[in-house]
Amino acid sequence: MDASALQLIIPVAGIVAVLFALYLARDVLSRDPGPAAMQDVAGTIYEGAVAFIRRQYTTIAALAVVGAVVIGVIISLVESSAQVAGTQIFGVDLGIRTGIAFIVGAACSMASGIIGMFISVKANVRTASAARRSLVEAVQVAMRGGAVSGFLVVALSLLGVYGIFVAFGGLTDPAQAPFLIVGFGFGASFVALFAQLGGGIYTKAADVGSDLVGKVEAGIPEDDPRNAGVVADLVGDNVGDCAGRGADLFESTAAENIGAMILGVGVYAVALAAGWPNPAAWIFFPLVVRGFGLLATIVAIFFVRGREDEDPMNMLNRGYWVVTILSVAALALVTNVMMQTAGQTGASGIPVWVYFFGCGVVGLATSVVFVYITQYYTAGSYRPVREIAEASKTGPATNIISGTAVGFETTAVTAIAISVALFLSHWLGDLAGLKSATGANVGGIFGTAVATMGMLMTTAYILAMDTFGPITDNAGGIAEFSRAEAGAREITDRLDAVGNTTKALTKGYAIASASLAAFLLFSAYIDKVNLILASRGEPLMTSVNLANVNVFIAALLAAMLVYFFSSLAIRAVGVTAQSIIVEVRRQFREMPGIMDYSQRPDYARVVDITTRAALRQMVLPGVVAVGTPIVIGLLLGYEAVAGMLMVGTISGVLLATVLNNGGGAWDNAKKYIESGNLKDENGNVLGKKTPAHAAAVVGDTVGDPFKDTAGPSLHVLVKLLATITLVLAPLFIR
Amino acid sequence: MDASALQLIIPVAGIVAVLFALYLARDVLSRDPGPAAMQDVAGTIYEGAVAFIRRQYTTIAALAVVGAVVIGVIISLVESSAQVAGTQIFGVDLGIRTGIAFIVGAACSMASGIIGMFISVKANVRTASAARRSLVEAVQVAMRGGAVSGFLVVALSLLGVYGIFVAFGGLTDPAQAPFLIVGFGFGASFVALFAQLGGGIYTKAADVGSDLVGKVEAGIPEDDPRNAGVVADLVGDNVGDCAGRGADLFESTAAENIGAMILGVGVYAVALAAGWPNPAAWIFFPLVVRGFGLLATIVAIFFVRGREDEDPMNMLNRGYWVVTILSVAALALVTNVMMQTAGQTGASGIPVWVYFFGCGVVGLATSVVFVYITQYYTAGSYRPVREIAEASKTGPATNIISGTAVGFETTAVTAIAISVALFLSHWLGDLAGLKSATGANVGGIFGTAVATMGMLMTTAYILAMDTFGPITDNAGGIAEFSRAEAGAREITDRLDAVGNTTKALTKGYAIASASLAAFLLFSAYIDKVNLILASRGEPLMTSVNLANVNVFIAALLAAMLVYFFSSLAIRAVGVTAQSIIVEVRRQFREMPGIMDYSQRPDYARVVDITTRAALRQMVLPGVVAVGTPIVIGLLLGYEAVAGMLMVGTISGVLLATVLNNGGGAWDNAKKYIESGNLKDENGNVLGKKTPAHAAAVVGDTVGDPFKDTAGPSLHVLVKLLATITLVLAPLFIR
Repeated sequence: MDASALQLIIPVAGIVAVLFALYLARDVLSRDPGPAAMQDVAGTIYEGAVAFIRRQYTTIAALAVVGAVVIGVIISLVESSAQVAGTQIFGVDLGIRTGIAFIVGAACSMASGIIGMFISVKANVRTASAARRSLVEAVQVAMRGGAVSGFLVVALSLLGVYGIFVAFGGLTDPAQAPFLIVGFGFGASFVALFAQLGGGIYTKAADVGSDLVGKVEAGIPEDDPRNAGVVADLVGDNVGDCAGRGADLFESTAAENIGAMILGVGVYAVALAAGWPNPAAWIFFPLVVRGFGLLATIVAIFFVRGREDEDPMNMLNRGYWVVTILSVAALALVTNVMMQTAGQTGASGIPVWVYFFGCGVVGLATSVVFVYITQYYTAGSYRPVREIAEASKTGPATNIISGTAVGFETTAVTAIAISVALFLSHWLGDLAGLKSATGANVGGIFGTAVATMGMLMTTAYILAMDTFGPITDNAGGIAEFSRAEAGAREITDRLDAVGNTTKALTKGYAIASASLAAFLLFSAYIDKVNLILASRGEPLMTSVNLANVNVFIAALLAAMLVYFFSSLAIRAVGVTAQSIIVEVRRQFREMPGIMDYSQRPDYARVVDITTRAALRQMVLPGVVAVGTPIVIGLLLGYEAVAGMLMVGTISGVLLATVLNNGGGAWDNAKKYIESGNLKDENGNVLGKKTPAHAAAVVGDTVGDPFKDTAGPSLHVLVKLLATITLVLAPLFIR
Repeated sequence: MDASALQLIIPVAGIVAVLFALYLARDVLSRDPGPAAMQDVAGTIYEGAVAFIRRQYTTIAALAVVGAVVIGVIISLVESSAQVAGTQIFGVDLGIRTGIAFIVGAACSMASGIIGMFISVKANVRTASAARRSLVEAVQVAMRGGAVSGFLVVALSLLGVYGIFVAFGGLTDPAQAPFLIVGFGFGASFVALFAQLGGGIYTKAADVGSDLVGKVEAGIPEDDPRNAGVVADLVGDNVGDCAGRGADLFESTAAENIGAMILGVGVYAVALAAGWPNPAAWIFFPLVVRGFGLLATIVAIFFVRGREDEDPMNMLNRGYWVVTILSVAALALVTNVMMQTAGQTGASGIPVWVYFFGCGVVGLATSVVFVYITQYYTAGSYRPVREIAEASKTGPATNIISGTAVGFETTAVTAIAISVALFLSHWLGDLAGLKSATGANVGGIFGTAVATMGMLMTTAYILAMDTFGPITDNAGGIAEFSRAEAGAREITDRLDAVGNTTKALTKGYAIASASLAAFLLFSAYIDKVNLILASRGEPLMTSVNLANVNVFIAALLAAMLVYFFSSLAIRAVGVTAQSIIVEVRRQFREMPGIMDYSQRPDYARVVDITTRAALRQMVLPGVVAVGTPIVIGLLLGYEAVAGMLMVGTISGVLLATVLNNGGGAWDNAKKYIESGNLKDENGNVLGKKTPAHAAAVVGDTVGDPFKDTAGPSLHVLVKLLATITLVLAPLFIR
């Protein structure tokens, strides 16, 4: 097979995946939406979600248009003032292209978020309804609903990057085009930042607020229809967990893809000089790999099946293994066909492609390792969660202390796994022996990019599993709310527990890909800076020197930004929750019929209040996230920005790990106790309504804004740092 | 005045300070130790503290001897294998010297910790006794007791560094000696690590354990004599807060002093080449500045006085301002006399010394800024603590969430203040225009060292204020325990509140000095590495390149180490507390007379159990702290170690800030509620025994191991990273 033939897989796989998503959507929508009671509450959730998304995306769209114009103008002005060399595209032309790429990236991200969320608020009630009949059917409905999101996010990101790449001359001048499309990644991050922040604040404020005012103050159960905040809580699962994570992974795939293509340019130059058959293949490689990842995921979806008495997690795991194994096979094919070196070999006479195949396998293996690490730290059957549950016996304080210790501890395996993956892929890439004209070995860094691309092959499947979470969570809420039969609720409870695990897994996956990509995005930034320096005839940046005081200061401020941003996000949840508490209290007071079910609470009003408050609260952290890197870059220069990027990424990834895993462990420690697994010294079960359970509920509540607002927002922040610096690099070079 | 005459101030000030400490100790010991009931409990505390310290320091001494031998052998072997150039001292000779310096550093650190703690367990009962008569007298006794620690720590560190410097030929070959004494700093950090860990684990385990089993389980008040754990709690204040912080600041002053002298060698070369009058003055400068700081502190101690109705904090602040103002004057004198440049000026024709005087003032100002930042974030009268208190109304979960947000938020001003200080001092140093033979401007980095030295001038006073904390805390406990008259208890309560603030201030100060020193220690490491590379005839390290994958991996692992180490420290508190709970429960069960005061609990047994458990628990985090940098260095090499050092410092400083300030704010939010400052919506006071107070107690308990174990241990870890890499640099160069 020929490399350029293989490139055709990019649009083909993208379009096939979109069509398959439409097929799945039709399939889900054709299912039985259940009895009227279910449809009623589902309709309310749907309305609330649509209202929030409409208002949120209107705001974001306005911000994105302003952002695009500002960026376009800045790039035009800054680049025009530089010396323009050769045929490269600079100045106003570059400014316009960057602005357009930004808008396209933003639009694709918004589209995938909106469509995915639309399906998931339709799939929730159908999952609840299916649970009345069959576990397997419920799993399939939820997973297919989730897969709509998964496929759309990944396919739109692939088609978007490819489309803008082709539009900006990628087929004729492949070495220049990757630098022109960085705006796409920035647009995607920009949208993701606000989508994740707004959704994350909404979901946890609604959750914490309605729990505090309902469970704690009024003493009514969770998801009880008398609580006016409960619909807002169910809406929140969709707009936060579902739309937010979709936007997060959209920008991950886009930004890392573009970064990998920029690094591919370095290998392209090597291939061109050496006269290898298809030099451009090195630039197209990241896109082709992802195309195959989509196809593998389509196959895998059909393997999500099983027996009625089987653990639903097994069904999902089966699909995950299918996509992983198919991806390994596809990797072998793609590296073999595309990485042709006219007989040149790497170390020990082994063909070059073999080394990069190894890098890709390292990436896929890292993804598997993270799945197991996350399970170990957040699932009830292992030491960490049991430790937190035991600590709950002596009250909320020891529960919190223990959970914090567990959260901190999780950074160890995370950092070690990432270090091993980076080291191995860099080492394998080095062995491939790709020497540039200046004698530098460009294979090592490209190896880390290939590992990242390998890891991203499974993104669509991971995202489907993730969206499975809020869909089943909602299905459980709908079943509870509509007082469905006990059998259905038993099934939705089981699915909900699995959904908690898959949500945690996705966060682990997102973190792993962000850290693995950190080095490649950092290298892409250096390449971009050097391109500009070269065009101005200035000496290139050959190192980022930590011994330079400005680099140190930027690094310190970046590490600080990570904490400060998290602080703002956590505080935003508190402020928003407060407004919900006030409103629900008012309804209890002014509508006395609520408590005896004779009056229906005004759910819509709470949804509306939460929407307004969450959107207001997302502005400050968003502005801080976008503004800080720009200020640091303007004050301290482009070398300092590199230090900021690197240390900000390291700090952000680790703090997100702490927040995500700590939160997940607290959540499951509560569930562990609720399932009757905790016993006192005499062997009596300490279950619900015991002080130990109350202590575990405190831990769960603390973990909520950590794992669902601050942690996921940090993923986005880390990638935003990368895309913003990539786009605005010219601004920082004085 | 002549520069070499000024150098005499070093031994003179050191000896005067030791004599003054002895005078203060005599003064404190001559005071009335109070009635028999007080002396009885104080005696028990004294015995427990001495027992712990004896066992702890026996362990540490054994570890230190092993450490010294291992380090001596390693340095001998590694350096011997290197090419020895010129007259420089390498090989076995260097190995022996490093081992000796290590032992001397360790011994001085242990001596100052032991003597300081001995006085503070004598001052506590005398403070309690004085409180029966007069507030001012109680303040003076506590402050003088604290000052004994402060003077001994700083003077022994000064005399130790100076003594070993002179012994290793500092007077004849000043440019070489600073590199020979790095072992002193490592010895000091090594002791500090275990002193802080052991003491920190002990104090918080005793605090948390006896609170949980007494207040929560048995329902008896804090510090109640029926609680068998209460003496262990009072012992803990001394061994943790007092001995631990003493060891922490001992190594800070030592390590930063040695680092500054190493940077002084660079300026020495410039001065020698330019033929300036007294080149060695640049190396002696850091020691001379600290000598004057000691003298200024002696004067300041006499200004700690006031009226009976005055806020005790004012009396302490008065002394602090005196030492600060005198330090500015001394700085002007020292820079003017010692920095003679034979007419060469810096930018704008301003004399060189003026620029460095400015750097020193920047350091002193930073210290003042940190005092106010810490007060803002941890004192009850400002927004952050009030916010946490308000959040307590909705339960422990919102209290914890709010406190976490505050803790995260505090990194912002901290990082910005440090950045400004570093930037200004580097900029001023640059303007001084000290050009090395290669044309490099060595003034910038030296400027940051001068700023650090300026900041350290007030260390003795700060440490006196810090030790004031545990002394008054103990005095309160003794008064409560011995059922002293209400007037005395009212005074000790006021002093205790002030002590909480001064303890928080010291932590802020320790963090600020650690961050300011980070850059200088980092630069000293590079100087040391280059000295070795030059001796082996290899190319020098001119930059620490973050784009090198090994540097990135080391940085990631260093950031992880900070979390992992904290996790181990926090967990150690939990395990140790558990053993206390089990023992106190056993005593309640088997000695039924305890509850009606007819039986005396076995306090000593709890002290003994806590001692054993704390010492066992300090081993793992200690080994991880010492081992990780060595492993990283051996695997990834000397450039990666530089990345580890820098990113580890940044991460450690910020996480310590979060833990210290978060913990302090939680503590004071509880006190804010106890003082009756929190009101519900109808204006009713929500004081003790309300759910809001219970929620605040949870926050306080969570904050305890954060602010008194993990946070302070991180200070030590950060400095240990610097000293360990400085000493073992030869091992990492392959």
